[in-house]
Order: sequence, then C-alpha cells, then structure tokens
Amino acid sequence: MNQTQFSFTVTQQSKTSKARLGVLKTPHGDIETPVFMPVGTLGSVKAMLPEMLLNEGAQIILANTYHLYLRPGVEVLDSFGGLHEFMNWHKPILTDSGGFQVFSLGQLNKVTDHSVIFRSHLDGSLIELTPEKVIQIQQSIGADIIMPLDECLPPDVSKDVVAKSIKRTTSWERRCLEQHLNKPGIHKQALFAIIQGGMYEDLREESAKDLVALDFFGYAIGGLSVGEGKDSMYRLIQSTVDHIPQTKPRYLMGVGEPVDLEYAISQGIDMFDCVLPTRLARHGAFFSKVDGMEVTSSIKKKEYEFDKTPLDVNCNCYTCRSYSKAYLRHLWRNKELSAMTLMSIHNVSYLMQLVKAVKKKILQESKP
Amino acid sequence: MNQTQFSFTVTQQSKTSKARLGVLKTPHGDIETPVFMPVGTLGSVKAMLPEMLLNEGAQIILANTYHLYLRPGVEVLDSFGGLHEFMNWHKPILTDSGGFQVFSLGQLNKVTDHSVIFRSHLDGSLIELTPEKVIQIQQSIGADIIMPLDECLPPDVSKDVVAKSIKRTTSWERRCLEQHLNKPGIHKQALFAIIQGGMYEDLREESAKDLVALDFFGYAIGGLSVGEGKDSMYRLIQSTVDHIPQTKPRYLMGVGEPVDLEYAISQGIDMFDCVLPTRLARHGAFFSKVDGMEVTSSIKKKEYEFDKTPLDVNCNCYTCRSYSKAYLRHLWRNKELSAMTLMSIHNVSYLMQLVKAVKKKILQESKP
Repeated sequence: MNQTQFSFTVTQQSKTSKARLGVLKTPHGDIETPVFMPVGTLGSVKAMLPEMLLNEGAQIILANTYHLYLRPGVEVLDSFGGLHEFMNWHKPILTDSGGFQVFSLGQLNKVTDHSVIFRSHLDGSLIELTPEKVIQIQQSIGADIIMPLDECLPPDVSKDVVAKSIKRTTSWERRCLEQHLNKPGIHKQALFAIIQGGMYEDLREESAKDLVALDFFGYAIGGLSVGEGKDSMYRLIQSTVDHIPQTKPRYLMGVGEPVDLEYAISQGIDMFDCVLPTRLARHGAFFSKVDGMEVTSSIKKKEYEFDKTPLDVNCNCYTCRSYSKAYLRHLWRNKELSAMTLMSIHNVSYLMQLVKAVKKKILQESKP
Repeated sequence: MNQTQFSFTVTQQSKTSKARLGVLKTPHGDIETPVFMPVGTLGSVKAMLPEMLLNEGAQIILANTYHLYLRPGVEVLDSFGGLHEFMNWHKPILTDSGGFQVFSLGQLNKVTDHSVIFRSHLDGSLIELTPEKVIQIQQSIGADIIMPLDECLPPDVSKDVVAKSIKRTTSWERRCLEQHLNKPGIHKQALFAIIQGGMYEDLREESAKDLVALDFFGYAIGGLSVGEGKDSMYRLIQSTVDHIPQTKPRYLMGVGEPVDLEYAISQGIDMFDCVLPTRLARHGAFFSKVDGMEVTSSIKKKEYEFDKTPLDVNCNCYTCRSYSKAYLRHLWRNKELSAMTLMSIHNVSYLMQLVKAVKKKILQESKP
C-alpha cells in the first residue's frame, strides 16, 4: 500500500477535553483539523463560487458520488480528468459514497448483500450500485478522500435489523477497501470507513471494531443527525469516538449546527460536513451569536428594515464586512439572487470561523 | 450653477466616423466613455456582486428610481445617506427616472400636465409622481447622474399624439431642471435630459432643440429599442445625435445588443444601459462571436456535454477564464444558482470588453 501523499498527524492534544488539532495531508494540499467542509453536492456549493469559499478560508469541500454519477456522469468526469478540473476547485475534495442518498432520495428497489438496486430520483431509471462500483465512480471523480458504500437505516429501526445491517455494511466496506487497494492510482486517494450501528452503543462499538481491524485511512461516524435528538446524538458520538484509534482522522457526517460542532470537537472529532449553512441561507436564515447564545434568525423580519448592523457583529465574512441587515432584507424581499449568495457566504464562513475559534482554544488548552 | 464635481471632455474624435472617446468626471470617479452601464434595478445587478462588476471593469451602474421608491423607499435610503452606501457600490451610479417603468409596469390611472398617477405593480397602491418628486427621490438615492420624468409612449402611436407628448415631456423636464437647480447639494448630481419623439425624426429634432435650449448636463435618447426594428432605430439614432451638442455626453437608453452598441458608438453615442446581458443569462443564453458574427446561444444544448471550451474563446471574463461550457451546462441543468451568476458575469463583461475593443479602434482612427 503506497499512500505517501496522505498522512494524518495529531499536532496538539487538549489537556481538558478529548479535542485535538491535526494536519491531514492530501495531494491537493494540507487540511488543518478540526475542519468544517462545505457541501457542493453536484460540484458546486450552492449559490457560492469557489473563490468565495477560498476567501472565507475553506480548506476542503464535499461532493456527492450519487449525484455526480447521475449528472454529469462518469464519462464527462473522466474526460475532464476528474471533478477538481471540471469545477475549478484545486483544493482537496471529499466525496460521500452515495449510500445516504440511495437510501433517502432514490426509490429503493432491492438491497442484497451483493448490491443495492434503486430508481434514480431524476428520471426513475433503474440503477445498481455495488461497493466496487461506488469506488470506481469515486476514482473517476478523483476526490482526495473517498467513502465506502454503507447501508443507511431510518433512526427508528429495531436492534436486530440494525445488527444485521452493520454486518452487511462492514462486508461492503471490506469490498470497497479491496477495490480501492487494487487500483493503480491508489496513492492519490484515501479511503475512510463509515461506522454505523443506529442508536445502539454496543452495535456502534461492534461496527467500529470490525472496521478498525480492516485499517482504513480514517473513520467516519454515519447515521447520526437523522432526527434522534441531541442527547442521543451526543451520547453516541462520545461512545463511538473511543473506539477509533487516536492516530486516525475522525469524521462526523452530516452535522453542522454550531453547538453540535463545538460539542463534537470537544469529543475528538476532526471533520464535519453539512448542507445546513447553505440550505438555511437559501431559506433566508442566518447564524449569529446573540447574548452569548447561538441563534438562527430570519432576514425577512420587518424589524431589520433600517438595521445598519451586519448579520453578526463579530463575524468577519465578506457579507458582514460589506452589507447591512437592511440591505440583505431588501434583496431577500425582492427575490434578488445575490441575497442567497451573500447569506450562504455568511453561514458557511460563520461555521468555519467558529471552528477556528475553537482551534485557538484547543491550542491554549494543549500547552503544558 | 455649481457643478464643479462634474465635467465631460471629448478626448479623441475618430476621423472616419462620429465616434469619440471622452471622460465624464463625477464625485464617485471618472468614467471613460463610451461606456456600457450594467443595470441594477433594485440596487443589485441581478445575480452579481459589486466585486464581480469591479473585477470585470464596470465603471458605473444604473439603478431605477421607480423600483427604489417602492422598495426600500426613500426613508431607508435617506437613513443610509443614499444608495451607494446601502448597496456597497462606491463608483458612479445613474438612476433612470422611473418614467419608463410607470408607463410599462404600473397600471396607469391618470396622466396630466401636472403629474402621473398610477398603481404600484407590487401592491396596487395609488401613487402620484410629479417631475419635482422624481428629482427629490433621486436626491435621496444620491445617484451621480439623474434623469427627468418623461412620458413614454408605445411605438405605434400617431404623430399628433407624439407631438403633444413631447411638449408635455419638455415641460416636465424643465420642471425637473428647476427642482434640481434649486437644491443645496446640486454639485453632487448631474441631470440629463431625455429626448423623445417616437419614430418621427422631425419630432425628435424638435424635442432635442427644446431641451438643448434648456442646457442640461447631458442628453439621453429615450423611447428607442421598443420593438421598432433595427432600421428605424438606427435611422433615429443617426438623425437625433446631430441635434445634441458635441460637448455634451450622449446616452442611448435601453440598448444593449452587441451590434447595436457598435453602431451607436460609430454615431457618437457615449453611454448605454440594458438589462439584456443579465436577463439573457438568467435564461441560459450567452453572447459570443462565432466566425466573426455576434451570436446569442443557449447553454442548455446537449452538444456542450463534453465541451471543454469557454463560452467565448476570446473572452477574458472570470467565467471564461475558469469554466467550460460542459460545466456551465451541468450547473444549468441542475438549477444551480451559480450558473446564473457565472453567465451574468460573462454577458456583462462581454459587452464591456466589446466597448473596450471599439475604444481601441477609435483611438487609432483619431490619430492625425
């Protein structure tokens, strides 16, 4: 196994929590962890251009295998030599495997140990994905960090169903690893595992141990933030993290509320992604800290009509440096597209600034 | 009259056509003419941020009095000290008077020599605009260049109706000039006149002569590009320009097709505005030159699926420097908002680059 272009190093360890700082090296640059990854499902972070992401300090973005497989398809991606070139983003990319989308967006047809068969959410056409194929597609996409196919269950499934499911997921992930290790360009990509196990700590422990034994480059916690409530989510993060080796990068999938990031980082999580900041922005909602509390507000409010202050007084993003709430409300009311762009910049930047502030704290906590 | 912050100087005159180069000085900076002015109706050039406009070399943008009067309203604009601050655009702004919108968007109620009464296109409320009020609103907006209220008729109106209308328009414009000259901040704004006269050369001559006698800072040709056909439009541009003094800036309102810009510049027009580039972009259409011909194409075409070339091979805009037709088509198909932003950047920049190229030619033609 030749993964010379990838490495992960924990550089600082907090003395008061499990939080740590690290550097994840990839062929497209180094990522300083913890890191929030903006989501560009189809090869575009919605309403944002790559330069806006760079200006706000984005280090890596996430794209989606399921969506990119449907459109533009592997032939187009192959002809461009991968997604980086196609979308004009030359920093690291992580692709989700599509498992989550197959089980949430597609119309499921048949799931066997061999494969998952479903209908496209776009045109209803029948598609079969095997673990091997999911890796092959990600090879065409050329993401730096790739994910294996996993079975994603709803949060309210009984324990015996989940127990069976994690065995299938682990066997799928093993096949993904084999497919990944067998290709020539292996040193250009790093494969993470996804730990499942629903809301059951012991099943998550089992899933983690089986996957750790296979030795992936990093480990993701999947299947959380699906409606289980914060208490359950926090409990499961806490217990699952302990089964992932200290030396491996840990990625909490689909989590993006400010308070959740802070909690998860304190538990030793290194990576996050979430559509929340951009999705909220497209609905007129923005993050800010009011009286020390993280709140999400709507720009549509009449009370902002004359408001000359930025979305958040301490925010350093382009939007907050340049525009008032009154102007953003005016854009929003008039359905100006720039409203979505400016609010997306703010929300994405807000999370990245939050992570940056937490990092500073970790650095202080790490000193002897 | 103290207009020390404004001046217009013709710096070069072509020896082979009526085309000329000039500099229009304003309190927010100098404008090198000829100039294309992107339209930001509501204080935002649709789908573009101010920085994108600056990066593509925009020198001045146009906003609309009618729209800004309805939203955000003069109280908000006053509280921000004007539109420049509100929208974070610190270069020159020109505001159209709203005449065109009153007669095209609003539901007309009553037009008298005194005023125009109409219903808002937003909520149906009854609004009265007088020439004086139109200037007052533009004082709140704080645009560098402002326009008087004019009566805008459909293109198929009989000559006697047009003849009466230009008398009313001239009297409105005289009142606008008086209102403009009577205010304290007069040196911060320059008022243009709008020449009307429908499709009748002699009426346009009459309108021009009456307005020139009043001595406005600049002269606009209004009421063209309203469906009259290119031959008529070109004939009317040609004949009307000759009635505007050489020393005054000349502004052709609402014209923005590449070939029309080239023609009008050759006739001595200095300024243009048009929603066309941004509107086309939001419908997936883009300007380019193919085999020496100006064409407008659709990004939606299947033939672009694998197309690695930019929208126009000779275009130097951000979009063309960074993205392929294949990627833009992909964004468009998937309703990604960035498609509209990137296409708008291209179309607006394309017109500005075209004007730049024509300027270079004029400079060469001007040498002794």
